[in-house]
Amino acid sequence: MMSAPPRLELITSGAELLNGAVLNRHAQWLGREAAGLGWELHRDTTVPDDPAALREAMFSALARVEVLVVSGGLGPTSDDVTRDVAADWAGVGVVMHEPTRAVVHAAYAARNKPLNDLVERHALVVDGAEVWPNTYGLAPGEHLTRDGRHLFLLPGPPREFQGVARDFLLPWLAARHPAGPVRRQDFSVIGWGESDLAARLNADGLAGLAVEVAYCAAPARVLVRLAERSGGGEDFDRAVALVRGALGGAVYAEADEPVEVTVVRALEARGVTLALAESCTGGLIGARLTELAGVSRVLRGGVVCYHNELKVGLLGVPEAVLAAHGAVSEPVARAMAEGARRVGGADLGLAVTGVAGPDGGTAEKPVGLVYVACADGRGTVVRELRLGGPRSLIRESAASMALDLVRRQLVGG
Amino acid sequence: MMSAPPRLELITSGAELLNGAVLNRHAQWLGREAAGLGWELHRDTTVPDDPAALREAMFSALARVEVLVVSGGLGPTSDDVTRDVAADWAGVGVVMHEPTRAVVHAAYAARNKPLNDLVERHALVVDGAEVWPNTYGLAPGEHLTRDGRHLFLLPGPPREFQGVARDFLLPWLAARHPAGPVRRQDFSVIGWGESDLAARLNADGLAGLAVEVAYCAAPARVLVRLAERSGGGEDFDRAVALVRGALGGAVYAEADEPVEVTVVRALEARGVTLALAESCTGGLIGARLTELAGVSRVLRGGVVCYHNELKVGLLGVPEAVLAAHGAVSEPVARAMAEGARRVGGADLGLAVTGVAGPDGGTAEKPVGLVYVACADGRGTVVRELRLGGPRSLIRESAASMALDLVRRQLVGG
Repeated sequence: MMSAPPRLELITSGAELLNGAVLNRHAQWLGREAAGLGWELHRDTTVPDDPAALREAMFSALARVEVLVVSGGLGPTSDDVTRDVAADWAGVGVVMHEPTRAVVHAAYAARNKPLNDLVERHALVVDGAEVWPNTYGLAPGEHLTRDGRHLFLLPGPPREFQGVARDFLLPWLAARHPAGPVRRQDFSVIGWGESDLAARLNADGLAGLAVEVAYCAAPARVLVRLAERSGGGEDFDRAVALVRGALGGAVYAEADEPVEVTVVRALEARGVTLALAESCTGGLIGARLTELAGVSRVLRGGVVCYHNELKVGLLGVPEAVLAAHGAVSEPVARAMAEGARRVGGADLGLAVTGVAGPDGGTAEKPVGLVYVACADGRGTVVRELRLGGPRSLIRESAASMALDLVRRQLVGG
Repeated sequence: MMSAPPRLELITSGAELLNGAVLNRHAQWLGREAAGLGWELHRDTTVPDDPAALREAMFSALARVEVLVVSGGLGPTSDDVTRDVAADWAGVGVVMHEPTRAVVHAAYAARNKPLNDLVERHALVVDGAEVWPNTYGLAPGEHLTRDGRHLFLLPGPPREFQGVARDFLLPWLAARHPAGPVRRQDFSVIGWGESDLAARLNADGLAGLAVEVAYCAAPARVLVRLAERSGGGEDFDRAVALVRGALGGAVYAEADEPVEVTVVRALEARGVTLALAESCTGGLIGARLTELAGVSRVLRGGVVCYHNELKVGLLGVPEAVLAAHGAVSEPVARAMAEGARRVGGADLGLAVTGVAGPDGGTAEKPVGLVYVACADGRGTVVRELRLGGPRSLIRESAASMALDLVRRQLVGG
């Protein structure tokens, strides 16, 4: 039997999170931290600074789950209403917390700033709350309990939210329900669509195993995440073996990482250097690789040969080959990869040429036709791709598939 | 008197949004777009792919507001449960939508991919729904109506969510409750931090005007959005003039657009071509430019000269200059820009060299030191930048500031 993980919910208040001004990152952060402790963030709700909306959201959440975390609305202005709603839920009042008031006074004195009329309101707390010092700002965190439910109030600014949560909330969660030994296994898969992948794994028997399966799709990539169910250890082992067997070389990493991370690790392990020739991707492969610090050990650089004259002048692609086959062709991709390797002084040359769209496609060479090529001095592998989607997706997919060609060159598959 | 804006709510389903794997950006995007149409996003809720949780969230939202948008859960796998819950709300069943099934078949045929058992499930819709074609992916959008409430189902991937919303939902919202004659003005500002910018505009008197002001920060860029208040027409005109006067040439566009869009428009208007030499940005400028369809009319291409040997060999940067000044220096940036212009056969050469970090900084050349240079044949402008933040932010900022140098070269400022 599987026991479900303990659940918590998060509510964040703030008009700026609902009118587009600010991106709300609290749920991603708390969800990841909670998952790491064996908890499940089961709902994330954002409401405006409106007592009625906040009250409805808080009371209904506290009827569903054991733990509710509320972020924001603890400041000194009139739109900071969280503590009043929380006091209402607890059936008590709001009081001045003298230790916090002393901290507020000291903070202002240290900065030679005069106290204004509002600032002491940071030290108001719900009567009877356990008060958690906030060393990152002024408003403290609070812990309230009623009828076996736990309500946590945390400050809204991300640095303060995360700081107080790290200091007090996460240790509380870890102590409340110590996590069992649940195993997880990620597979980063390239070249499969999400539904094709799920269909294949289910046909191979994954759907019949007692294991949690989640899919998460990105351009040219699907993350498959397996998690053990309590008591389902054998099925988990079977599921891991099943995914490995079904997908083979399409799994570029048994971890959650973009393909460029895998490729750079493989290049570094072998002391192999790389140079690029990018046409339709226009620099995207270089941009993704150089996002990784330390990549200069393996990446020499490359040429963005968007115009054909640069293919000829900088990479030495023969004009006759361009004229005979067109820029989007197997022979041009091959010549680009060999040219990149030569002019970049690298062990491997990687090239991409294709029709990214939305215009420029023909019946013979439609939008989505892409050639990727990898030259290693002994020979050159070229692969023809038919990619779907809009321009940006075709470009991201082409970059990923090109990088994967390097991985296959290095590790086989 | 101002009447309260019409309200909508958003619900997003997906375990990956609650376990930390993926950051949910839907609320920020929809909240901003809705606000621009005079609507208020009044609540944002994220639930797992769990029919009970989704049902409770959807039914309670539809009891509160006239319009509910639900994103995600329209795919083909067993954790895609949104359409079933929606059908339940509408009191009908789920049916195969033949036009969508034909599109799915055609998409697979075009890519020479066999259909799997699951993929047709993309074409399942709620019986009686108005079906909105999704030209960005497979699962269409749907519009359901009951008892004066409107339920919209949109696909979950951000590109598809935004695409279908732009094509159908936003026009529907605009038509449903036409906003009054409220004027809006966007300013895309480069090179200012958000809080410095707000402090400057407030010091100039913006805070005293009856106008709505919103700031939205991105790397090296702040969007300032002014909106007229009902009856505040004169203050709106004053505010527009005040922002123009305070910021001058730092406003690269009086619209919400990334700087590469402004730059490509300026290049096209003047029939000027561009070539690139990228070191620390590693292809990012090329990638951002080539994301724009039709850029081949003005972009020739360039060199990613990550290793110094490529600066010498491909761009003709003199070895003596590299040895005397180092790769991150004013003379090398200058020589790179001139080399890019020459080997790219372009009217303008644009170069970036810098220390992106986190390692590689010294006391003399710290992380964040970046030189951008633009050569036009008559001379070369070089600008030294001191950028802050982590590697990705320094790179994005460097790319934007380099592109802005082209804009200033073309339009002055």
